[in-house]
Amino acid sequence: MDPLSTCRLAQTVAREFGTPCAVVDLDRVEANIARLQGRCREAGIANRPHIKTHKSPVFAAMQREAGAAGITCQKLGEAEIFAEAGFTDILISYNIIGDEKIARLARLMERAQPIASVDNPVAVAAAASAARSAGRTLPVVIECDTGRRRAGVESAPEAVEIARAIRDAGHLEFAGFLLYPPEGGVAVTQRFLDEAGAGSRDLGLPPPRIVSTGGTPNLADLGRIDGTTEHRAGTYVFNDRMMVAAGAATLEDCALTVVATVVSRGGPTRGILDAGSKTLSSDTGKLDGFGLILEYPEARIHAFAEEHGFLDLSGCAAPPKVGDVVRVVPNHVCVVVNLMDRLVATRGGMIVGEIPVAARGRIS
Amino acid sequence: MDPLSTCRLAQTVAREFGTPCAVVDLDRVEANIARLQGRCREAGIANRPHIKTHKSPVFAAMQREAGAAGITCQKLGEAEIFAEAGFTDILISYNIIGDEKIARLARLMERAQPIASVDNPVAVAAAASAARSAGRTLPVVIECDTGRRRAGVESAPEAVEIARAIRDAGHLEFAGFLLYPPEGGVAVTQRFLDEAGAGSRDLGLPPPRIVSTGGTPNLADLGRIDGTTEHRAGTYVFNDRMMVAAGAATLEDCALTVVATVVSRGGPTRGILDAGSKTLSSDTGKLDGFGLILEYPEARIHAFAEEHGFLDLSGCAAPPKVGDVVRVVPNHVCVVVNLMDRLVATRGGMIVGEIPVAARGRIS
Repeated sequence: MDPLSTCRLAQTVAREFGTPCAVVDLDRVEANIARLQGRCREAGIANRPHIKTHKSPVFAAMQREAGAAGITCQKLGEAEIFAEAGFTDILISYNIIGDEKIARLARLMERAQPIASVDNPVAVAAAASAARSAGRTLPVVIECDTGRRRAGVESAPEAVEIARAIRDAGHLEFAGFLLYPPEGGVAVTQRFLDEAGAGSRDLGLPPPRIVSTGGTPNLADLGRIDGTTEHRAGTYVFNDRMMVAAGAATLEDCALTVVATVVSRGGPTRGILDAGSKTLSSDTGKLDGFGLILEYPEARIHAFAEEHGFLDLSGCAAPPKVGDVVRVVPNHVCVVVNLMDRLVATRGGMIVGEIPVAARGRIS
Repeated sequence: MDPLSTCRLAQTVAREFGTPCAVVDLDRVEANIARLQGRCREAGIANRPHIKTHKSPVFAAMQREAGAAGITCQKLGEAEIFAEAGFTDILISYNIIGDEKIARLARLMERAQPIASVDNPVAVAAAASAARSAGRTLPVVIECDTGRRRAGVESAPEAVEIARAIRDAGHLEFAGFLLYPPEGGVAVTQRFLDEAGAGSRDLGLPPPRIVSTGGTPNLADLGRIDGTTEHRAGTYVFNDRMMVAAGAATLEDCALTVVATVVSRGGPTRGILDAGSKTLSSDTGKLDGFGLILEYPEARIHAFAEEHGFLDLSGCAAPPKVGDVVRVVPNHVCVVVNLMDRLVATRGGMIVGEIPVAARGRIS
């Protein structure tokens, strides 16, 4: 794309919507969606995109149109929004715990086919309670931690113990395993999966019908774990500076930018954007600086106030002036989208509409 | 307050609203509001609270009821929400720049009496343009940076140059100075203010009718700068772990907690809360850990995923179990509220309602 015309587009966004404003290039989104769908097809596995990145049925419909089979939600509240929008095959990759959530999960089962995910006996009991209340069988996958030290059982024997609890709880179907393999973690994940699979077979359980891998930064390993049936990627739909740093995307694959205005200078080597931590979030993604300014890559967003992005312009031969409009590629796009009520959509260099972030803030 | 009854309240919140859930203790809010109002009264200055913390006309009405004179907004979009709610005396402590914002500022002038803030000639011209378009005079204060290196002119001569631009722009009233004195910065701020005041007098301008100081962490210096007419504090309404660390509040003054559930353990010294960066934000406020768990102060929230808070429980003699409900005092409450659509309100240990965060996400 011609940088000048892109720049004109940012000016138009600023004039029509004001800044800061998150803008999504639908051409890039479609290319990102098509690319991952193609890779899943080549790997012979299903694509179950994680909606935590876009939180919008509009983008999920684009993913489904391209061939995605079902969606992944992180929180029950997200699943409710997507069920309302007509999505039915919803994997919730999160322990659902507590009476209020059990009641909501039971209600969700009336209008969708959720798949629950568990890594502990309390979550197994909660899933069984919801299924009993709904009068239906709830498929459940076991979340396994094969090295990231996030959520999930940390060993295959623990996974087998959870499989036993699922078998014995009643109203639950043992559906398989949920993995988020660390980068370079194919071998260790394979051993874990094989051992957990053998253990669950020994319990008289059927072979897993779902072995779900996840992540965008680790797409290089897509389909390399034997037995994988599907993949859950989220960030790929928009990409961000973290994905570029991880080698999972190029800057040209980044579909979301925040259009911002230089609103103050404060000295010859300083500058201030009207986008701070309430716009770009304080999540650095362990990168230097809080985002990349496309027009001034040598500028550094070195700190935030809530509504100020503080720039170090000492590396800029021709620094921006007050009033200049710039585009920022965020470090971590998922948390930026979660700050927005709507995204401005463009196609072919034209503004084509606004897309509500329907599940924004659905943390519960 | 009896810790057990507080704990029961958190359980009730979890049962009725699900977790994570931000809960505000209105008794504490009222005490915080009364305390600051009393200090402003003693100092002989007006209280113009900054609404960026609560973003809700409900809390602003409580502040007004207690004696606040006007409000402060950081962004024009916040001012619009509060004008709709009937607030008229609104200081916008932010450079308003760009045609879209100029048009909105002109419209705001039709239904409210905004005061603009500027630190550069582009913002002066924008304010004049809005005022001309509204056919009214717009009061303008000059933002001065007396040491924080945030926004604002960095020297008194620069402030005088801006005062001259305001005088010459037409349709603008030079109203005074906007300060955010650094902690311990009384003397340097006084010198800056005196020199800028003398310079603006030499331009034939009237004495400043507004000299506005700001901040909660620097309340110890309230009214100590000669000429101060008002103070803008935001965080004091709820307080947070940063304010406690700064000595500006005690833990008992913290009115907002996030009720969360332990949803996973992952090993004997680990634990996972259902509150991650999309709930508590990645803003550490330069403190260790991402929040204080009241029931387990020795637990450390050492990292976040978007929906996971990762706990180091190695310091806990009796660590929490999966399913346990806890209360978290956030590091920086302003950015947490901005992630929420509503806050659950309690009074006297009872849930009394929900308060919408009406200006949430009004970044533009």
